[in-house]
Amino acid sequence: MSEDDPTESPDPSPPAGFSPPPIPAFDAEAAETARERQGDLTKPPGSLGRLEDLAVALAGLTGDPRPTLADPTVVVAAADHGVVDRGVSAYPKSVTRAMLRNFAAGGTAVSAISEVVGAETLVVDAGVEGPAIEAGGPVEIVDERIGPGTDDVAAGPAMSRADAVAALSGGVRTARTRLADAGIVALGEMGIGNTTVAAALTAALTGADPDRVTGHGTGVDEETRAHKVAVVERALATNGLVDDDGGIDRDDDLDGGIDRGEEPDAGFDVGPVEVLRRVGGYEVGLLAGVAIGCAADRTPVVVDGAVSGAAALVADAVAGDVRPYLLPSHLGDEPGHAVQLDALGLEPLFDHGLRLGEGSGAALALSTYRAACRTHDRMATFAEAGIER
Amino acid sequence: MSEDDPTESPDPSPPAGFSPPPIPAFDAEAAETARERQGDLTKPPGSLGRLEDLAVALAGLTGDPRPTLADPTVVVAAADHGVVDRGVSAYPKSVTRAMLRNFAAGGTAVSAISEVVGAETLVVDAGVEGPAIEAGGPVEIVDERIGPGTDDVAAGPAMSRADAVAALSGGVRTARTRLADAGIVALGEMGIGNTTVAAALTAALTGADPDRVTGHGTGVDEETRAHKVAVVERALATNGLVDDDGGIDRDDDLDGGIDRGEEPDAGFDVGPVEVLRRVGGYEVGLLAGVAIGCAADRTPVVVDGAVSGAAALVADAVAGDVRPYLLPSHLGDEPGHAVQLDALGLEPLFDHGLRLGEGSGAALALSTYRAACRTHDRMATFAEAGIER
Repeated sequence: MSEDDPTESPDPSPPAGFSPPPIPAFDAEAAETARERQGDLTKPPGSLGRLEDLAVALAGLTGDPRPTLADPTVVVAAADHGVVDRGVSAYPKSVTRAMLRNFAAGGTAVSAISEVVGAETLVVDAGVEGPAIEAGGPVEIVDERIGPGTDDVAAGPAMSRADAVAALSGGVRTARTRLADAGIVALGEMGIGNTTVAAALTAALTGADPDRVTGHGTGVDEETRAHKVAVVERALATNGLVDDDGGIDRDDDLDGGIDRGEEPDAGFDVGPVEVLRRVGGYEVGLLAGVAIGCAADRTPVVVDGAVSGAAALVADAVAGDVRPYLLPSHLGDEPGHAVQLDALGLEPLFDHGLRLGEGSGAALALSTYRAACRTHDRMATFAEAGIER
Repeated sequence: MSEDDPTESPDPSPPAGFSPPPIPAFDAEAAETARERQGDLTKPPGSLGRLEDLAVALAGLTGDPRPTLADPTVVVAAADHGVVDRGVSAYPKSVTRAMLRNFAAGGTAVSAISEVVGAETLVVDAGVEGPAIEAGGPVEIVDERIGPGTDDVAAGPAMSRADAVAALSGGVRTARTRLADAGIVALGEMGIGNTTVAAALTAALTGADPDRVTGHGTGVDEETRAHKVAVVERALATNGLVDDDGGIDRDDDLDGGIDRGEEPDAGFDVGPVEVLRRVGGYEVGLLAGVAIGCAADRTPVVVDGAVSGAAALVADAVAGDVRPYLLPSHLGDEPGHAVQLDALGLEPLFDHGLRLGEGSGAALALSTYRAACRTHDRMATFAEAGIER
């Protein structure tokens, strides 16, 4: 950032840039071994369709020719957003806090879906308004609080540079400590107002028009959605993320530019971190960090809906090597989601018209990934079954 | 059938027609109670998309406003087909028998997927060539053998009238005894040659052109597929299922006509049973019976691929009240499958390019149905979570 940038954080001691951990390359040899095994299993070659491709991809990602995806885990990060005061959601900010308790008590949709697919849930408070919450339920609430909610993105930056770095770092730490045993991780979130933030991030990181990536979120009416579009436009303008000609500022004002599709820069201290700081959220930054930390440990990451997708865009922009580890789940109803999946090259597994978030769609998709690996690992070969081909 | 029908069974004592068991109507009250509950759960209304609709539908089918789908079960029926001698498959008939052992040993794709989704498998020998098989594995093989494989459908009827009735009755019996505790049942099958039979049944029961509903099955090349189309056409012609003008004979020659979309006739002794007898298979008839028997017990039935779909068409034609109980899973690669789903009014949940059969796609879909019911049953209401709407 230039010295005279009006949006620069007043933080007197901005942190040094953090380097993302190194992310291993796709293991082509493990994938090739897996592909050969698929041809030996007791089924017509190719008859398991996409499940075969998923098993081979997971072999290459994990480096294990017969990946088992043990201990699948849904991480649900929650935070509050100052922009809610502008009336962009059907619910008040206090619902984030109440839902965090609901996660801990096992009373949410993603709690139920996780049970069905045999996944654990890890609930993380990334910065909900008010003091830290004592769980009081069967599920622990991990304290990775950056602060008590972000500032209003339509009035200025959401957070300080230090907080943006802390969110990403907290995510990497969460992945490498609390998710170290997970064979696959699904990204979930909760935060009233976060589809507004996701829309702003998606517009800034993909260049898409705000109107195209801003949806009804929790279910606001069309008038409120139009207001939400205006809030997103204002957030981008206020935070210097729009060029004079109305286009998205991709390379000029930002420190290092947004190098999507290219090798990542030296560390977190590049453009995407600044975008996160200006129009992001704590839970989005934390999930981006989780994705990067998981990839560093060869753990595939399943992207959920539009907020999870915004985190995936941030992760991808911060550390391009994360891309192969980002896996699709559903196509959600929030319009920005399709834009995100397209930008990330992800083809959804199903479309159930979900628009809940929480990781609900990603959790459901875990059964598909588990089925792909279980068939791959457990089916008899023709030789084992004594069947001539 | 008329006395002089050349395709009439020589069976000297044709059995009296069997009546399908009565099938309860959709319970609109249970569905309405479920819909109201969906509105009380801690999520924006409608945000679980199709999962909400599935939960409501399952409430109406089971008559339980909070259905739990306990003990989900995949039933895999296996049989052999005389038409295989005409070179319509990439595999010899003996593979059916070998795969039946593989099911019993838990080495198949559907065995692995059932484990992942928490389902039991029930393996049924409906008529595999050779003597009955001793399982020798952890999974029992249920003996519902009609005979040692059907006759060649391209040379005459597949089976006797008595055998067609026995297959349907065996399926009803299997449902009402061995599947009585299952909250939801997925239809699977194994039988070298059965995509040829499924194509003939689909053409006869929907009026679709044989070329449109005949695919590559186990993976035959295009030349073999063209041969397969010719075999299907010959099967229909030989068995009097083509009008003089080339159309499918829907109402004239068949005993009672094929009453799809209308109330079922007095019993099994109507057109569809005759279609099954002429161009069907034992496992197809058995699965049709399973669907009818399950529906009679208010147990929803998940349709798999093209062979399972042919069984669903037979069930629907035999007992129209079964229709609401037939639920979709995937869209398979076999081209007749889309025709079947369209005829049955089923919208698939996903398309993974599967063409294996065995119930693999239906088994995977059980996780979606379970997720729909688990969220519906276990999520906290706004009142329970102390959240104001």
